[in-house]
Amino acid sequence: MKSSVDHITKPAGFISSGVKSGIKKSGKYDLGILFCPDGATFGAVYTQNKAAAAPVLWNRELAKQSKMVKALIVNSGNANACTGSQGKKDMETMVELTANALGIQTNEVLICSTGIIGQFLPMPLIEKGIYQAAKELDSNNGEKFSLSIQTTDSFLKHSAAKIEIGNQTIHLCGIAKGSGMIHPNMATMLTFITTDAQIESDLLQKAVKDAADCSFNRVIVDGDTSTNDSMIVMASGKSSAPKITELDCSYEKFYKALQKVSIELARQIAKDGEGATKFLEIKVSGTKNESDATKAAVALAKSPLVKTAFYGEDPNWGRIICAAGYSGADFLMDETELFIGDVLIMKNGMGVERDERLLQSVMAQKEINMHLILGKGNSTATVWTCDLSPEYVEFNGKYRT
Amino acid sequence: MKSSVDHITKPAGFISSGVKSGIKKSGKYDLGILFCPDGATFGAVYTQNKAAAAPVLWNRELAKQSKMVKALIVNSGNANACTGSQGKKDMETMVELTANALGIQTNEVLICSTGIIGQFLPMPLIEKGIYQAAKELDSNNGEKFSLSIQTTDSFLKHSAAKIEIGNQTIHLCGIAKGSGMIHPNMATMLTFITTDAQIESDLLQKAVKDAADCSFNRVIVDGDTSTNDSMIVMASGKSSAPKITELDCSYEKFYKALQKVSIELARQIAKDGEGATKFLEIKVSGTKNESDATKAAVALAKSPLVKTAFYGEDPNWGRIICAAGYSGADFLMDETELFIGDVLIMKNGMGVERDERLLQSVMAQKEINMHLILGKGNSTATVWTCDLSPEYVEFNGKYRT
Repeated sequence: MKSSVDHITKPAGFISSGVKSGIKKSGKYDLGILFCPDGATFGAVYTQNKAAAAPVLWNRELAKQSKMVKALIVNSGNANACTGSQGKKDMETMVELTANALGIQTNEVLICSTGIIGQFLPMPLIEKGIYQAAKELDSNNGEKFSLSIQTTDSFLKHSAAKIEIGNQTIHLCGIAKGSGMIHPNMATMLTFITTDAQIESDLLQKAVKDAADCSFNRVIVDGDTSTNDSMIVMASGKSSAPKITELDCSYEKFYKALQKVSIELARQIAKDGEGATKFLEIKVSGTKNESDATKAAVALAKSPLVKTAFYGEDPNWGRIICAAGYSGADFLMDETELFIGDVLIMKNGMGVERDERLLQSVMAQKEINMHLILGKGNSTATVWTCDLSPEYVEFNGKYRT
Repeated sequence: MKSSVDHITKPAGFISSGVKSGIKKSGKYDLGILFCPDGATFGAVYTQNKAAAAPVLWNRELAKQSKMVKALIVNSGNANACTGSQGKKDMETMVELTANALGIQTNEVLICSTGIIGQFLPMPLIEKGIYQAAKELDSNNGEKFSLSIQTTDSFLKHSAAKIEIGNQTIHLCGIAKGSGMIHPNMATMLTFITTDAQIESDLLQKAVKDAADCSFNRVIVDGDTSTNDSMIVMASGKSSAPKITELDCSYEKFYKALQKVSIELARQIAKDGEGATKFLEIKVSGTKNESDATKAAVALAKSPLVKTAFYGEDPNWGRIICAAGYSGADFLMDETELFIGDVLIMKNGMGVERDERLLQSVMAQKEINMHLILGKGNSTATVWTCDLSPEYVEFNGKYRT
């Protein structure tokens, strides 16, 4: 398969595959393997959901024992969440089958599942699929792997970066799935990023945690996560660039690249919100601390009234300031100011005269920036979301378990 | 005007009126006065929103100075919120006009506004309206007053109770407005309850606070309040029943009646959710403390995915348990159990075989109870909400500022 994007097999050391195992009744790709035969250090962050799915529990345990993995097995179409002891057994069987098929140890296998909650995995199909996927591993099968993690996504989400350390190139390539609405008690968000960097496991974990905080956690709000949300970064160490062993300039360069890839993927997830017609970037500034800015930005991004107003292309700033008001953020009405695009809408807590034609042209755009200033403080926060359309409700009302 | 319900002028001591002042371009009732010429003790709770409207600020200040009021002036169609210093001035003018028209002091006047945010009040219309409303005060105008506080409500919300203390009757009558969706960064919730009880001001305030916590705050989640939300209870003391002066059986009787009226009104607000097709009662039990039960119940009630599932009549328990999982409530998946109506859906964190026909008949009902058991603890919480329909989005997307 050819395409213009850099796939996760671009960084040296990785091969992958994707197959149609039959988990999805639609007959689409639904099972994939990412393989790093010589082993990769890894960093990951997972859902905080109390109902975390069996695969998440496995990966968390693995991270306590091991600093190196070789494979990631993923299926879509079934999340293996809320499946109790049977789900745990099925997950372990998946890991064992993958290890057998690849000739590696079970504690070298990470696992992710995404899809419907509360149903048991069709294990005979999965067994067959794993052996097929193991056979088809190839450095040209990056796109098939991408396809095998999709659920309701309307497009593939890719991002890549390239940096130089010690005159040697390091590649980072990432893919993501997730098209749930934006504050997401919903469809799982999965992100896998490969790199050929050599990096200490602890530093990689720190970089992943920090990158998630300023990307995916800006879309998928902390604590508001699904049962399966996972971001996993694997580093093959195949680049000739010197190993990153401390928090120095090399680390900083690597981290910035990881951050860029993560933010690009996060924005793509927001854009692919179910039924979304508009992508919204919400910036809140002027608060005394970041926590207040984040509270307000998140409240705006979650508010059905704000989101429906953008769907209706109505610059209803009353709803926006109301959402900030109940967010728990500390501010004084008299010091508030609001811009939609470059148009000043509100100042000193009151509406101002505005250029209606310009404002309507901003509201008609597919990507809209909103900037709410809550005072004279120095803190800011930015989140990404989408509008709320009747299609979202139809979509989720008609999706049958 | 005749009707079968007991209006807020039923308790002795109150007269009221409602007029069409022209604030609403539709020409509907939009301004009303509730008058208690001999004075009433009062208790109230207001929005916690940082962007609280000018009238709310007035009422809060008044409560610090005064234990007795005589009048409540209300308008709908314009919330006088986010209107800065001009809004404060307009509010004070409304209070002065009301005091003048009734021949009372300004510190005997409570004020509420509801409607669109961010626009200045049409003061000439309001002035004319206040004088007209003062002239039309009558014990038979209860329904006109009810009509004058409506905005997008699809029906009038009433509730009444009658108790005996010392062989004498005490009446309580309440009205409410509010048809916003259920976790409500939205349309204002207003509740006014009159009673002829004689009760100490401090005790009345305590009763109002406690009644709100188990009624309106179960619909309109704490902190998630609009700019104008207010619940005001006025007690004329005209009943011959002995005065309530301590936390005794008489107080308890009065409180239970106030609670009943409040809960009935709160449930009516949930039923009148914009575009709602179903009313949902969500009970969570089995947690170690009430806070955990409340967190989970609120998360379920807020989840767009849970709400759209009920709209689609799909018993999608994965979404329900997922929402509980990210709610922050402490529980173990293995101990969870879920009932929709009387049908057991999930046990020990896994789906169970169920009577599909019975379940579908439950899902098809207009009022659905859900009971999520999160463990073996003794705490419970109940909240009320409604489903999320495409009509909600259309309604709020098309509503223009």
